[in-house]
Amino acid sequence: MTQNPSAVVRADGRTPDQLRPVTITRGWLDHAEGSVLVEFGGTRVLCAASFTEGVPRWKKGSGEGWVTAEYAMLPRATDSRNQRESVKGKIGGRTHEISRLIGRSLRAVVDVKALGENTIVLDCDVLQADGGTRTAAITGAYVALADAIAWGRRHGHVTGGHQVLTDSVSAVSVGIIDGTPMLDLPYVEDVRAETDMNVVVTGAGTFVEVQGTAEHAPFDRAELDALLDLAVGGTATLAQIQRDALAAEPGRR
Amino acid sequence: MTQNPSAVVRADGRTPDQLRPVTITRGWLDHAEGSVLVEFGGTRVLCAASFTEGVPRWKKGSGEGWVTAEYAMLPRATDSRNQRESVKGKIGGRTHEISRLIGRSLRAVVDVKALGENTIVLDCDVLQADGGTRTAAITGAYVALADAIAWGRRHGHVTGGHQVLTDSVSAVSVGIIDGTPMLDLPYVEDVRAETDMNVVVTGAGTFVEVQGTAEHAPFDRAELDALLDLAVGGTATLAQIQRDALAAEPGRR
Amino acid sequence: MTQNPSAVVRADGRTPDQLRPVTITRGWLDHAEGSVLVEFGGTRVLCAASFTEGVPRWKKGSGEGWVTAEYAMLPRATDSRNQRESVKGKIGGRTHEISRLIGRSLRAVVDVKALGENTIVLDCDVLQADGGTRTAAITGAYVALADAIAWGRRHGHVTGGHQVLTDSVSAVSVGIIDGTPMLDLPYVEDVRAETDMNVVVTGAGTFVEVQGTAEHAPFDRAELDALLDLAVGGTATLAQIQRDALAAEPGRR
Amino acid sequence: MTQNPSAVVRADGRTPDQLRPVTITRGWLDHAEGSVLVEFGGTRVLCAASFTEGVPRWKKGSGEGWVTAEYAMLPRATDSRNQRESVKGKIGGRTHEISRLIGRSLRAVVDVKALGENTIVLDCDVLQADGGTRTAAITGAYVALADAIAWGRRHGHVTGGHQVLTDSVSAVSVGIIDGTPMLDLPYVEDVRAETDMNVVVTGAGTFVEVQGTAEHAPFDRAELDALLDLAVGGTATLAQIQRDALAAEPGRR
Amino acid sequence: MTQNPSAVVRADGRTPDQLRPVTITRGWLDHAEGSVLVEFGGTRVLCAASFTEGVPRWKKGSGEGWVTAEYAMLPRATDSRNQRESVKGKIGGRTHEISRLIGRSLRAVVDVKALGENTIVLDCDVLQADGGTRTAAITGAYVALADAIAWGRRHGHVTGGHQVLTDSVSAVSVGIIDGTPMLDLPYVEDVRAETDMNVVVTGAGTFVEVQGTAEHAPFDRAELDALLDLAVGGTATLAQIQRDALAAEPGRR
Amino acid sequence: MTQNPSAVVRADGRTPDQLRPVTITRGWLDHAEGSVLVEFGGTRVLCAASFTEGVPRWKKGSGEGWVTAEYAMLPRATDSRNQRESVKGKIGGRTHEISRLIGRSLRAVVDVKALGENTIVLDCDVLQADGGTRTAAITGAYVALADAIAWGRRHGHVTGGHQVLTDSVSAVSVGIIDGTPMLDLPYVEDVRAETDMNVVVTGAGTFVEVQGTAEHAPFDRAELDALLDLAVGGTATLAQIQRDALAAEPGRR
Repeated sequence: MTQNPSAVVRADGRTPDQLRPVTITRGWLDHAEGSVLVEFGGTRVLCAASFTEGVPRWKKGSGEGWVTAEYAMLPRATDSRNQRESVKGKIGGRTHEISRLIGRSLRAVVDVKALGENTIVLDCDVLQADGGTRTAAITGAYVALADAIAWGRRHGHVTGGHQVLTDSVSAVSVGIIDGTPMLDLPYVEDVRAETDMNVVVTGAGTFVEVQGTAEHAPFDRAELDALLDLAVGGTATLAQIQRDALAAEPGRR
Repeated sequence: MTQNPSAVVRADGRTPDQLRPVTITRGWLDHAEGSVLVEFGGTRVLCAASFTEGVPRWKKGSGEGWVTAEYAMLPRATDSRNQRESVKGKIGGRTHEISRLIGRSLRAVVDVKALGENTIVLDCDVLQADGGTRTAAITGAYVALADAIAWGRRHGHVTGGHQVLTDSVSAVSVGIIDGTPMLDLPYVEDVRAETDMNVVVTGAGTFVEVQGTAEHAPFDRAELDALLDLAVGGTATLAQIQRDALAAEPGRR
Repeated sequence: MTQNPSAVVRADGRTPDQLRPVTITRGWLDHAEGSVLVEFGGTRVLCAASFTEGVPRWKKGSGEGWVTAEYAMLPRATDSRNQRESVKGKIGGRTHEISRLIGRSLRAVVDVKALGENTIVLDCDVLQADGGTRTAAITGAYVALADAIAWGRRHGHVTGGHQVLTDSVSAVSVGIIDGTPMLDLPYVEDVRAETDMNVVVTGAGTFVEVQGTAEHAPFDRAELDALLDLAVGGTATLAQIQRDALAAEPGRR
Repeated sequence: MTQNPSAVVRADGRTPDQLRPVTITRGWLDHAEGSVLVEFGGTRVLCAASFTEGVPRWKKGSGEGWVTAEYAMLPRATDSRNQRESVKGKIGGRTHEISRLIGRSLRAVVDVKALGENTIVLDCDVLQADGGTRTAAITGAYVALADAIAWGRRHGHVTGGHQVLTDSVSAVSVGIIDGTPMLDLPYVEDVRAETDMNVVVTGAGTFVEVQGTAEHAPFDRAELDALLDLAVGGTATLAQIQRDALAAEPGRR
Repeated sequence: MTQNPSAVVRADGRTPDQLRPVTITRGWLDHAEGSVLVEFGGTRVLCAASFTEGVPRWKKGSGEGWVTAEYAMLPRATDSRNQRESVKGKIGGRTHEISRLIGRSLRAVVDVKALGENTIVLDCDVLQADGGTRTAAITGAYVALADAIAWGRRHGHVTGGHQVLTDSVSAVSVGIIDGTPMLDLPYVEDVRAETDMNVVVTGAGTFVEVQGTAEHAPFDRAELDALLDLAVGGTATLAQIQRDALAAEPGRR
Repeated sequence: MTQNPSAVVRADGRTPDQLRPVTITRGWLDHAEGSVLVEFGGTRVLCAASFTEGVPRWKKGSGEGWVTAEYAMLPRATDSRNQRESVKGKIGGRTHEISRLIGRSLRAVVDVKALGENTIVLDCDVLQADGGTRTAAITGAYVALADAIAWGRRHGHVTGGHQVLTDSVSAVSVGIIDGTPMLDLPYVEDVRAETDMNVVVTGAGTFVEVQGTAEHAPFDRAELDALLDLAVGGTATLAQIQRDALAAEPGRR
């Protein structure tokens, strides 16, 4: 770490420990049981939660529900167009990996017994990508999930006195750029980061996922600690934004 | 035709020859050379135009450009969730058919010589479906295409004195419901229509595509004529909305 | 329309409103419940109808039957060899689109209640292609379908007093070439057509499908009317050929 | 072998060492450089030979040509309908295996140096299957191949004084049924055979392929010898039928 | 045949009628009900037999079991790396063909009634390839199959007084090189063979499969006889090696 | 953490901070430029390094090399048989994710400039799985990679005075079971772990990847620190085992 972090100003004017502007718009879709358009700066992800009664065959009779997620990106979400995975006929490794991450992150705060034998699928479609699409997806999907569970309770599919959600969950990216740990990287920072980490944290401040990757140079324990500190601070702010969004009246745009 | 059309009031309060509220929002994406969020009532389609220099191999050296389109639907655009085509590993017949229709409709108003050896791909992704997704897609894609061509001209990829666009193009659905021909069918009307027709019309009022299908009962020449009349009226209104959108300053939301 | 149509003579000696020689050979296959080799000039399509008891899961218990179709082309049906879709591992958009068209066209004249819970699949395989393969397929498939229904009745799978077929159905292509509307286009005319239309018509003369496409230039209402007139005349002749074929003794070659 | 073979009469009236009626119709397609409809009793295979200049990349510059084959079956060639491999999205093991067999069999009589850098693809599509489809395909494909080579010579693509075909090649199935070795099995015999063998033989009477399989019981050396004797006799007759077909004027039906 | 076979010495020092060193290591895997690492010289195949109760749907209620096999090769089993079939998204023709051959060969010595409604899948994965992979696979898979059946009997899934295995089965390749028939070809010989034959033989010396292919020149009856003689001798030795392996205590490495 | 870790004895007799027996066998394959059979207890992974001159198209002319990896599992590596991904026709998310992890981990210690325009593909095939397959694969693949680079240098494909490998790299799994952090989890421990972490560490003790997942309950900072300590200790031992293996003469079994 070669610089005094507090003196660093980023290209978009933020300090190293500042999030981009984050907005969460509930009820963006008319049909989905929960839906959110989540924006982390220029990153825009549409999260739709579909609630259906019943569970996959391998969970039948268990008394437990199931929550899963699928992540995808529109062809022109990025600076240049990508071929559709439906046209290629197969899903790429990155897509699979992120879908699995989102699903695991959400399940970490779901009491599947309290959900009962119901399934909720979270579709996270990136409309525009500017770094941190997976962390925005997790953060928005949690709110859509909460709305879908509330829908299930209103319609009598979720019953009993237990809370389905045991906590909230949000996620943020952190990375080291020119020796300085920074929070919530947009694309231009992401490609320059020596180390890149995605951290998924509960409302209580405990970890659900820590995924750190040395992109250009291995990192030491002190760097790892600095990144975790930043992430815990960022996700605390995101948890508050989630609470505020859920406290307001839903309603699109 | 068993009723006096002028006396009919539809579930959403429209007369048989009235379009749903139509909005065209240009510049919805930051990266795409042209982008439009088009809404026909509850139907919302994101149209992104990607401009790239060069053409597919089979057009190289022809001096001509190429315009093509891909249509897709988000899993939760509809009332119940559909499996992703990328997960299924193949694209369904309906998706293929609509992609081809959009591409043909746009090419009908493009002078490929004037475009030069450049390619424009139109991605039309249905965010929410409430009937008429293919006609909304054509109508919005035309505007995104116009913006992408203007981008190409500003950046020196499109040169010469000829207009690339020889006319505008828009589309609308029409159908016969309980014997009454109606314009711009939402989903609830679409499923009840005896006959369903999608009509693609130029700004000059000539036909690019006429696709009429007897869903429940074959139709006669008089019914066909009534439907065509409605479609020509509706697309004239759409052409005006397209002109207004292109005359305004672009800018998202 | 720049020419006196009646004065035009086509490359194969036909007048603009004349069909190519059409033959329908019933019973071309030994196993299929109905089978027809249909020829429109050099276009040769083998139509096989497979009758099976039972319906797809989503129709079970409805008391209704199901009719569907699959269209395909042998690799060397055309002037140069095409790769097999089974080798590519996916079905192209054109194949999907035509399969769907044939299925819809046949279902328009089937009373699914009268068919009972039985399924008939029409396989239309193009052995040789010289324009109009989809219209020949519809025309031949109707006859194979009629034979398969008769087989179902003879074998006690179709019962009750109602006719399963409410009418006959046939199809023909029409197009405008050098300003002249023409009937039943072979390949050499098809590629030159400014406008190309496939029209599916019942024995009663009502429309099942009207699919008009401006290949090179949009078409106006007068041109559309002229094309529909030609198509109605051509399909009336085809309906008579179908009746004659069904009146004769079946028997291959 | 429990019976006196000479006393056995088969269901279709043949003696054990008799072929079914075999017909070879040349020129069945208008476009292909060589085409044959070959019939072994109820088995009907359309063989189309496509001649193209050039060779696959891995043979470029070798001065040698390439001959390959693809085998397929129409969905209703058999007693009950089979799903299309293009719909399944992959080619089954049996299809692959037979395609490879046909290609190897033909290459055994081709002098690839004399062919020059040209490619001939043989498409063998089974229109109707009644046992022995692969042996009929090889027998018919040889004739289509000969016609395509002649076409290549007439059009100046094949030059030089050497014969491209070093011999003819044909094939037949043999099997042991109720202890009796029999020639050219139709479907009803094929399913009952204890042992089933496909033998590919040159005009000179030497072996190209011997593929014997014990379907129900292993076979001994004496049985193997008896089957090979039958096959050599049958292919000698087929070679004569091929010579007669090639000596006649081509011309469909 | 231009040489005195007895005078020929092969590159690896063997006489024409000698096998390569063959080893069969039982119990190579901890989990599989039967497992064998079989080596024919440099060819190494891992054969794993998986025993499961129940049969595929089409055999349910038949009282009969099912035995099947899958063959595959690791990407770097060969001299240069091959792309994985899982990455290509489809299985090649050669893989299919060999899987089917192994399955048929094993079923020839299995009494499916005595097996009862149980399924055994043999996975034959080539770790290193030096010719004869399919024959090594059959030879090793038989031993793994025997161990899996014994497991099934010990665990009470196979009951009754009948032997499940009616005989043993092994396989070997033979070929003609420079006019000399030779046994058990390594890769360097295989590519030079004029004729290549794989022969599957029971412990009793009867044939299960004979697959002879003229790679470079058709072969005559005398050559065929010489190859069969060699194969019968080689498989007799292999049957003894199998018996010895099964008589010993199992135990890895 | 509810127990005194030093007092805990695991089912296999290890203390919480002890690795399973680890063996690295170099030269296990005859053809691959580097190959290793690596064993972590019952987990056995065959790592084959394929060295080829040249790089993928997108790296051509960069002067840099490319290192990538593919991970796969034999169907019967696990307790019950899994379907082959080649049969399914697509690669699962887990396989993709692990392949990507192995490739990134190796690239972190490769100087691609020093490698020059050469490609090394690491195939890591799990022959038997008992937990920690990805960490064993990374640990073994590093040794195979080192051998392949040495091969490239001996054969003159890698030149210049720079080391290609800037450090060694190994990996280990750690997890919390019943409140106790433990090193190198076999399958029975892995399924019970509350938290599961895979850590990839260089010979110098810096981090390449940290992938921690809360399987059953989110984990706090103290737990994370304890797990990282264990992992750093375990990988130091693995690095020594790698050094020892590379110091010895290669040679299979």
